Amino acid sequence: MTTAPTAPTAAHASLAELAARLDAEDTLAPLRDRFLLPPDVVYLDGNSLGPLPAAVPPVLTDVVARQWGTDLITSWNDNGWWQAPLRVGDTIGALIGAAAGQTVAGDSTTVQLFTALDAAAALRPDRTLLVTDPDHFPTDRYAADAVAARRGLDVRRVPPADLPRFLRAEGDRVAVVSYSPVDFRTGELYDMRALTRAAHRAGALVLWDLCHAAGALPVEVDALDVDLAVGCGYKFLSGGPGAPAYLYVARRHHAALRTPLPGWNGHADPFGLRRDYEPAPGIARARIGTPPILSLLALEAALTAYDGVDLAEVRAKSLSLTGFFLRCADELLTPAGFTPVTPADPDRRGSQVSLRHPHARALTRALADRGVIADMRAPDLLRFGVNALYTTHQELLTAAQRLHDIAAGSAYDPAPRTSGPVT
Amino acid sequence: MTTAPTAPTAAHASLAELAARLDAEDTLAPLRDRFLLPPDVVYLDGNSLGPLPAAVPPVLTDVVARQWGTDLITSWNDNGWWQAPLRVGDTIGALIGAAAGQTVAGDSTTVQLFTALDAAAALRPDRTLLVTDPDHFPTDRYAADAVAARRGLDVRRVPPADLPRFLRAEGDRVAVVSYSPVDFRTGELYDMRALTRAAHRAGALVLWDLCHAAGALPVEVDALDVDLAVGCGYKFLSGGPGAPAYLYVARRHHAALRTPLPGWNGHADPFGLRRDYEPAPGIARARIGTPPILSLLALEAALTAYDGVDLAEVRAKSLSLTGFFLRCADELLTPAGFTPVTPADPDRRGSQVSLRHPHARALTRALADRGVIADMRAPDLLRFGVNALYTTHQELLTAAQRLHDIAAGSAYDPAPRTSGPVT
Repeated sequence: MTTAPTAPTAAHASLAELAARLDAEDTLAPLRDRFLLPPDVVYLDGNSLGPLPAAVPPVLTDVVARQWGTDLITSWNDNGWWQAPLRVGDTIGALIGAAAGQTVAGDSTTVQLFTALDAAAALRPDRTLLVTDPDHFPTDRYAADAVAARRGLDVRRVPPADLPRFLRAEGDRVAVVSYSPVDFRTGELYDMRALTRAAHRAGALVLWDLCHAAGALPVEVDALDVDLAVGCGYKFLSGGPGAPAYLYVARRHHAALRTPLPGWNGHADPFGLRRDYEPAPGIARARIGTPPILSLLALEAALTAYDGVDLAEVRAKSLSLTGFFLRCADELLTPAGFTPVTPADPDRRGSQVSLRHPHARALTRALADRGVIADMRAPDLLRFGVNALYTTHQELLTAAQRLHDIAAGSAYDPAPRTSGPVT
Repeated sequence: MTTAPTAPTAAHASLAELAARLDAEDTLAPLRDRFLLPPDVVYLDGNSLGPLPAAVPPVLTDVVARQWGTDLITSWNDNGWWQAPLRVGDTIGALIGAAAGQTVAGDSTTVQLFTALDAAAALRPDRTLLVTDPDHFPTDRYAADAVAARRGLDVRRVPPADLPRFLRAEGDRVAVVSYSPVDFRTGELYDMRALTRAAHRAGALVLWDLCHAAGALPVEVDALDVDLAVGCGYKFLSGGPGAPAYLYVARRHHAALRTPLPGWNGHADPFGLRRDYEPAPGIARARIGTPPILSLLALEAALTAYDGVDLAEVRAKSLSLTGFFLRCADELLTPAGFTPVTPADPDRRGSQVSLRHPHARALTRALADRGVIADMRAPDLLRFGVNALYTTHQELLTAAQRLHDIAAGSAYDPAPRTSGPVT
């Protein structure tokens, strides 16, 4: 399967000049050196699995060879393993606008979502509804269904745009609203502030799934009075495959917080090995069991890629990148049969661009064969994630041009093949 | 704090000869090279955190640099990340007597215990009691209390010795019995076969916590008709700090199995991103969220230390080691105020020896200062874990002799200091 290169068009030449100028003006460009990106690959799938930060390998070598290999069990105290969930939690907290002492890292996103939803429902025991996005990521949906079934609640699936109206009508029965600020398929960004306020006016708690927001744009959980938030460590935070997730619970809820999975790590006196569970003070009560230290400390090392980085600048560059890619799409891809579905309005755009095409799966494969890694979501969406810490405008033009060439030349096999597992 | 070395006693000389002979005859001795043990340290805490297997660092370097760094998202398929929970599960399954397709690895021990207990209770919906060991490890206790509270069950705490009688009297109300074959404090080994049969005669399901058994002695979950089992990866299996735990569910329960935390990894069509949860066939339905791949693949590498190893030989050597240490204790430590609490009967002994002493904490500290790493359990137990894959009889004599010297010379500070976090 080969494609004859298309001769550069006028559009491409103009876009190339623009890309070069934007990259030259990019003050965040030096951050790319904080990642070990493979040569000759345009990686636009960091919203699924972030690439390897340069800080990770030496830290992991130290964790394995010295901390585990030599210091052995003493590392729980002497190398700070015991405190790692709270320490990493605080580091992530700083990226989502959470003051220290409200965020804990460890366990998978699914476990954290279940914990957060169940704990939130328990904080509103007299209410009967759990409201969530009909297009929420599947595991968010399954967790909501599981918690509702267990607690005798009803789940209502309300699109974000309809949520304020729904809450005005039925809000007094709503225990928790659970949404993501960024739609994982389309990249649409919702108004966290307005939706949080609408939930609070109804007396409900709000749980945000920040998987596609944290590290990609400024999130202000404290300033917005968010109640709970959950997110994964392996997308924009680049913490590695299956990196532990995190749970934020606003301090005002800590005293009443009861989690569904009480484990000895969250006990008030964990080394007392007490017979009855007594939750630790503060967010430490949201710890569960012994966390996967190698993965957790890899995540901690990865987060140093954000050292000294201003998330407002990250957001500005991310919008420049997605805006530029939308322009590339307009000029190169719309004529070739692609339909952008990500909002053109920057205020309604996360850090990805999604394009609709009936052969999305085959095109994503063909693109990967040409060194551009994006991903697809069934049935017909191609997703292009940008990360302001390492993505360049030039890379996006390369991606658009190659995709154009593939589609224009029909140099791909539209027969569906089994796709890879992605989140 | 120094201790004048005690002149070798006649007892020591005889014990030294015995240790030398037993080590010389040890056919498993070459396995020690499969571990990177620090020099000049006697490590008897592998029942809390196993030491670093030599296979782990090169594998982890490959996982990080090549699989994550270069192959990126394609590793989910092309480097087998997606299948890792089932593949590692099967590898552990082989160590606990489980045929393939019944064991899954991932998530913490606490999450797996909660999952197993809740799922087991759901399989016996008409029964009202959950029976567990009054001296069970705390997180087992908390999980039992949490599941019982959630499902409206009562928890009964019955010592293993009393369990058959209890089951004869009240067994028809018992949904699940949850025990560990090895008491984590005393090292006492219970009769898994007899207790499993007693539970089954009552129509109850049995859940075994294998944390202190798997890898240390032959366990035959299939042959004993065990219903569910859970265990951690970081003790005898030496999978690294916080290594993922595993869950075994006998195949006969798979079709009816419903787990409390349905996540997208356990869906019948995980990449279809379906709206409603439909459990995958088989043990895959016990998968939850995306597992911590770095920790999981480190565990997988660690398990190669068991390649070609006969667990019957492991058990025989383990009993030789603990038997020898009990003899050292009799000759060197009982006179110095220590009381062995681990059964002398080999059939009732796991792979550790526990000694009682009122200054257990300070003595453990002083021993660590002299290069012997054991641990303690409040208030007064010193624990010495042996692992037949690397422990020698000579090391145990060294430990006993140093402990004797410390206690006899009172060369330690009996004031309590805060101890390290251990499991």
